[in-house]
Formats: sequence, C-alpha cells, structure tokens
Amino acid sequence: MNKRLVLRLLGAILLIEALAMSPSLLIALVCGDGDAMAFALTIGTLCIMGLPLWFLVKPIKPNLRAREGFVVVALSWLVLSGFGAMPFVLSGVIPNYVDAFFEAVSGFTTTGATIMTSFDEPMRGIMFWRSFTHWIGGMGVLVLTLALLPQMTGRTSHLVRAESPGPSLSKIVPKMGDSAKILYMMYGALTAIQFAILVIAGLSPYDAAIHTMGTAGTGGFSNYGLSVGAFQSPVVDVIITVFMVLFGINFALFYRVLTGAWRDMLKSEELHWYLGLFGAATVAICILLMPTYGNVFQSLRYSSFQVASVMSTTGYATADFNLWPQAAKMILILLMFVGSCAGSTAGGLKVVRLALLCKISGREVRHTFQPRKVQVVRFEGKGVEESLLTQVAVFFFVYILMILMGALLVSFEGRFDFETNFTAALTCASNVGPGFSMVGPMENFAGYGPMAKIVLSILMLAGRLEIFPILVIFHPSVWKK
Amino acid sequence: MNKRLVLRLLGAILLIEALAMSPSLLIALVCGDGDAMAFALTIGTLCIMGLPLWFLVKPIKPNLRAREGFVVVALSWLVLSGFGAMPFVLSGVIPNYVDAFFEAVSGFTTTGATIMTSFDEPMRGIMFWRSFTHWIGGMGVLVLTLALLPQMTGRTSHLVRAESPGPSLSKIVPKMGDSAKILYMMYGALTAIQFAILVIAGLSPYDAAIHTMGTAGTGGFSNYGLSVGAFQSPVVDVIITVFMVLFGINFALFYRVLTGAWRDMLKSEELHWYLGLFGAATVAICILLMPTYGNVFQSLRYSSFQVASVMSTTGYATADFNLWPQAAKMILILLMFVGSCAGSTAGGLKVVRLALLCKISGREVRHTFQPRKVQVVRFEGKGVEESLLTQVAVFFFVYILMILMGALLVSFEGRFDFETNFTAALTCASNVGPGFSMVGPMENFAGYGPMAKIVLSILMLAGRLEIFPILVIFHPSVWKK
Repeated sequence: MNKRLVLRLLGAILLIEALAMSPSLLIALVCGDGDAMAFALTIGTLCIMGLPLWFLVKPIKPNLRAREGFVVVALSWLVLSGFGAMPFVLSGVIPNYVDAFFEAVSGFTTTGATIMTSFDEPMRGIMFWRSFTHWIGGMGVLVLTLALLPQMTGRTSHLVRAESPGPSLSKIVPKMGDSAKILYMMYGALTAIQFAILVIAGLSPYDAAIHTMGTAGTGGFSNYGLSVGAFQSPVVDVIITVFMVLFGINFALFYRVLTGAWRDMLKSEELHWYLGLFGAATVAICILLMPTYGNVFQSLRYSSFQVASVMSTTGYATADFNLWPQAAKMILILLMFVGSCAGSTAGGLKVVRLALLCKISGREVRHTFQPRKVQVVRFEGKGVEESLLTQVAVFFFVYILMILMGALLVSFEGRFDFETNFTAALTCASNVGPGFSMVGPMENFAGYGPMAKIVLSILMLAGRLEIFPILVIFHPSVWKK
Repeated sequence: MNKRLVLRLLGAILLIEALAMSPSLLIALVCGDGDAMAFALTIGTLCIMGLPLWFLVKPIKPNLRAREGFVVVALSWLVLSGFGAMPFVLSGVIPNYVDAFFEAVSGFTTTGATIMTSFDEPMRGIMFWRSFTHWIGGMGVLVLTLALLPQMTGRTSHLVRAESPGPSLSKIVPKMGDSAKILYMMYGALTAIQFAILVIAGLSPYDAAIHTMGTAGTGGFSNYGLSVGAFQSPVVDVIITVFMVLFGINFALFYRVLTGAWRDMLKSEELHWYLGLFGAATVAICILLMPTYGNVFQSLRYSSFQVASVMSTTGYATADFNLWPQAAKMILILLMFVGSCAGSTAGGLKVVRLALLCKISGREVRHTFQPRKVQVVRFEGKGVEESLLTQVAVFFFVYILMILMGALLVSFEGRFDFETNFTAALTCASNVGPGFSMVGPMENFAGYGPMAKIVLSILMLAGRLEIFPILVIFHPSVWKK
C-alpha cells in the first residue's frame, strides 16, 4: 500500500471540498440566514487538515496500483461525506450528526433520500450546499480532482475506473486528465442549459439552481416537501423529464455527437435498451393511471415524469406514486433495480448489465439443447469477453445480496413493515431516493433509528461506487505491504 | 425432435399417474366419502389415453437428445398436473378447474400453497391424493418412470438431469436406471420410518400418512387449517423438524452412509453450509422470539420448526409466523430464496449455488486488487469449472427475474399489497408454500384471480424444474427437425 500517495490524495479531496463549499458560503453571506459561520468553520477545518497533507506528504512512488485506486475512492467518499455533514450540524438545521451524515451521503451519492421533515424556514446556503453535493457526486469527485489537477499522479486510470459507473471504462480521449476535463465541461454545459430553460419557464433562479443540480446529478433533493410537484406546472414537469432522461445517458455518446459522430448515438445498443425500457414503462403506467387522472395527457405527464425520475435514479416526484395502483408501483420497483446507462450520473444496476444478463441467459437456454455450439455474446457490435460476462453476473448477485442484507439489518429495528424496509434498502442501494410505504415520495427517512441510517448510508455509498471499492477496503490483504 | 419417443414417454407418464392414483381410489372406496367415482373416471381416462401411446407409438430411434429430455420433462409435468387436477373437480371438492390445476401443480411441485379454505368435511381419498402428489413430485416422476421401466429408452441421463434439482448431476451408481431404483428405495425407507415414528408419537395412521408424505416430498399440504400446529404436540413438532432437515439433504450422501462411506457425509461442504445456515437462522429467530414465547425452549421449538420448514421448502407451520417480529420474518424471506441441498426433494436456489456464488464473489473482490493471479474456485475439495460457475450465476439472475416478473404479473390484478404479491411469487418459485401478509401461513391463495393462479402455477413448475426445461419448450428452434 502506497500510504503516502493515498494520504496526499485525501489532502487534495479535502481542499477540493473546501473549494466546493465556497459558493454555499457566498450564498449564506448574501442571504444572511445565519448559516455563514457553519460554512466558514467547516472550510477552515478542511483547509487545516488538507493543506499539510497535500504539501507536506511526498509520495515515494508516483503510481497508483489497482488496490490503491479502490482504497482512495472509498476513503475519499467517506471523508467527503463526513465533512460534508458538518455545515448541517453547525447551522443547527440537522442537529444530530448521524442524521447529517445520512443527508450528506445521500447528497454525494445522488440518492436524494432525506431525513428533513420541514422545509418551512430554509437556510438558503445550507439548502444550496445540500443540492450542490448532488452535482459534485454525480460526475464524481475524483474525476473532478483529475480535471483540476491532471498531473497529480502518474497513472490515474484506476481512480476513474473505481469511481465511474458501469462494467467497463470507456475513455473519451486517450489521456485520462483530458477525459475528465471534457466530461466536466459537457456536464457544466448541460447544467447551464437546463438552468436557463427553467428560469425562462418561470422558476426563480434559486429554485432553478436547486432543481437543475438535482437533475444533473440525478440526485433528487428539492427545497419543497412536495418535490417538483410544488410548481404545479406541466411545462416544468416536461423540461425536467427530458433532462432526467438526458442525464441517464452515457456521456461518451454526447461527446461523439459533439465531435460529429452522431450516428454512433443512434446505433448505441445500450441507448436502445434504455429508451425502449423508458417507453414501455411509461406507456404501461400511463394506461394503469387512466382511471386515476381521467385523460391520457395527464396520465402521460405523470407516468413519463415518474418513469424518468426512477430510471435516472433521480427520485423527484410530481405525484404521490405510493397511492398508485399496485402494478404501477411494481413497475417502478423493477425500474429501481435497473437504473440508467453506464457512464451517466445515474445509479442502479445499469442498463448495459441488464442487457448483458438477458443475453447470457438466452445463450444458456440455447446451450441446453445445442451443447456443442460455441456462442459468443455480442454487444454494441462486438463480442464480449467471457471474464466480463462473469463479472456482470457476479455483480448482479452481490447487488441483490446487498439489498436483501440491508433490508434484513434495517428490519432489526422493528419499526416498519416489509414494503418499507425492502424498498428503503433498494432505493438507497440504487441511489433513487424515495421508496414506498413509510419511505414513499411524500414521506422521509427520519423515522428510522441511527443503526438503520448508518446501514442505509453504507448501501448508498456501495451503490454509488458499485460495491467493490467498499468491499475491497474491508479485505485484510489490501492493507498488507 | 424425436416426436414418437416423446409421445411414447408421455404415454408412460399417463399410465404411471393412473397407477399412482390407485391407492387413493382404494382409500375412497374403503372410506365411502363419495369420491371414488372421481378417481375411477380419471384413472379410466388416463388408461384410455396412455395405453395406445405406450403400445402403438413405436419410436424409430431409441435415444433421447438433450432438448428432448427437457421437452419430455416439461410436458410430463404439465400433463401430470392437468390430469392430476381431475379428481378435485369431479369430486366437487374444488369445482373450478383453474383452482384444481393450481392445487395439483402445488402438489406435484411440492410447493404446498393451497386454495382450499375449509378442511371441515374432507373426502379422505381426495386429501390422500392431494398429499400423495407431494410424494411423487418430490423425488420426480421421471425418476420413478426410470425406476419402474429402466430399459425404456437407450440414453436416459438427459431426463434425470432435466428433472433433478441442483447444478450438477451426481449419479449414485453408473447405470441411471439403478440409480433411480436406489433413490426410490431410500426415499421409501425414510418415509416408512417417519410414518412409524409419527404413529408411535400418537398420530392416527391417516394423519401420519398425510404429514409424512408432506415432509418427505418437502411439500407441506396438511389436512388441518392450522397445519402441524393442529396437533399441539412438541414431540410431533420435533419429529417433523428432524425429518424436514433430513429430506433437505442430498440423497447421494445417504447412499454413501449406507455403503459405509459415512465420512463423506461429514466432509460434505454443501452439508456444512446447509446445517450452518439452519443453525444460525434458528438461533437468530429464537432470540427474536423470546419476548413472544417467554422462554428459550418454546422459542427454540417454534424457530427450529419454522426454519427447517422454510429451508426445506416444506411450508408447514406451527405458528402464525406472519405475526412474528419484522426481522424474524425477513430471515424467513431470505431463507425462502435459498432452499436446501441439491439432490434433495426440496426447492429454492439450493445451498450449493449460494455457496458457489459467495465464492465467486470473493474471487471477484480479490481479482480487483490481484488482477494477474489466476484463482480457481474450489468446492467439495475439487476445482469447479468456469462454465459451471457462469451457469450458476446466470441461474441466479433468471431466478430473481422470474420472481420479480411473477410479482409484477400478479399485481396487475390489483387485489393485494406488495408484501403479498412479492412473497407469493417467491414462495411459489421456491416451492415453499405459504408467504406473508394475505398469503401467510394461516391464509391461502384462494383470494387471487384466475390469471394470478396460472402465473403462480407456472412459477411453481419453473421453480421445481429449475426454469430451463420450461424456457426450452418456448424456444422455437427446439421444435425444428
């Protein structure tokens, strides 16, 4: 273990978090809601701890090995959330540290599950920070570190591999530092476009900023208890629906469109699956909602919004879908497992994994009656390596096991029913946000005790980092010299 | 497709079903409850259809290929259940054919989920047949066919492979027909022992027979609404607990004990996992039940019975575990996924698959930080082939997908909540029997509509036959020449 390099990188993360907190401090100072001191103290702490680590710890070797990549990513996200919770506590908005940690983890992992029960007297700096964590967490803090400090370490592909969602890494351009910059530029541009459109649609710049960051990071924190439903505007619903779908698409495809290879986007097999699932689920739920909403336009408005929200793992709501017909709820639960495309800001299993699992299953069926025929699984026009297929199938097992174990652990508190506990574990592991029953879209996670909140925080982190970095840091042999 | 051979085998199945129905006809005649005619008519129909198929259809080639093995198994089980439902309808006990089909499928697949709401005026022949289907279905009807007609076809390993539970086939002796005979002899002996012990413990021979067949096949049909709880006897509870655990063990291990190699049993890795899970779950639930039952003996009595019942996928109950603490319910739900050992009469994913999945996951974690090290997964002291590992991982995906899709389809009826629908699909796919909420141990499946009953019947068949035979018959290329 190259401990010096790990420590130096953690120093960088602390400094970047201080930087990321500055806009919130500025807003707190301008608005004067009384939360500026909380940010000043936290930024001060981050600098006092980060500066010596960054400037004084000199690594002997500049390269990161795979295990160190995983360890840095896992520790970074823990440290980020640990300090990211401080302003909530210091400002008094969330006095209990476990609650604040849950909220910060939920923010950075772009889950959007909240323990806040009242939004009546918000401190605007705090609410901005809460949503800003979505924006940072969506694209990834180590990707941001690389974008800002590209020459920091020699080999950095392990870092991005451990933090980026999806089974395989698609570099946009050969140099990882350049890829990180391009990703953040596209991310920033899409964010700016959505912000502008929402302002034109009539939202205040503050509301537009909060909800744009929640959409871009596919997080889902809102500054209203009714979520996006508070605006009661079909235009806003449609805008956010479109952007939720967009932010669930692999960013590498946007780059190809920008560089003129827009045909690649049309040919993308993962995109076909993604949009196919989105369309099928929207139509099915639309039909199921017809008796509730009376006409096809209203049904379509609510169903498309909710399907986009759940598939992109954003978690916004325009209706209390906890009250929808059982079959509509069940479709949403299935979509919570799936999530969106690899290389997007969304969580979940990822569409590409689902597609590959379906293809391997089909091959297994054919194999039972054509045992001698060698059959290669193809995706995006290419044969997929067997080791990747095994990896995807194993990932599925670990993912389901994690959700079931999470549901078991939270049920030891004995507070809620099976539907609440199961969907809470599912929605946290998939980084969606709301679940069903007592953690439904019009409810919150405040009813759980501290043990359940810690379990659900671990599920959110494991879901965002795709489990293995979290498992790796618990493996004793990682820490050997 | 060797259609002549498939037809001839189906003829044999019909005749064997007629034979299997004879004891029930005898009981109906002796008891005179008015159900004898239902059996006579059904046996007549079976003979009229089976005799010409068996004697007149001469196959051109005597060998079965893999695809034909799957097709014969899938069709046999459909045909068995289809005719097995006739006595229920003809006797008037279950007048609706869909309900009767559900009950017959539940019997043959050893699920034990029932739509019967009243046990007050039982027709003893019908109740005997209902439980006898468990006994036949437990070891497998094609295994029985081979035991009775060993020289029927040239190569028969495909048949047994398609019907036997577990990822790999362990032949007991080189000849498949001999293996089938030995399996049924051991099965019969264990059944006789349990019957004798239950009679000594004070049960009437009729009650003892019903509950022994339910235990041996790991089915779970009872002739009492309160299931085994009706006897209110700790001795009966313990006897049935022990035999449920025994019938969840791979029968090949019993053969090795009989042939003197009893050390093999002690060394069996799957058995260690099985007993380890049983012990851990029993202790955990026992602790959780202490406040409910007051002392450790009562808690242990109820927890060990229920854990054995769910793990062996029998589904008997001595308590309404639907009212137990959430964590105890959640442990039972997790055990419903797992089931027992391969090569037993139980359903579920099977312990060996869970063990292999855990081992592959561990390897995948190590692989992330030791990418170049080749790591072989070992089980029962031997290296496991990669193709089998992939197969197990794919099986897990298809299994979960089937449960989730089943839950979705039954929820379209809109009758019940998520807990009911999800656990109904799970308990049927795993061949356990009772689920939670409205399909809990003191409830039944009568509340579902016909569509849901058909979906759940398919889940039971797919679960018993481990999915692939059912998928194979829907694949168009299987039916090509």
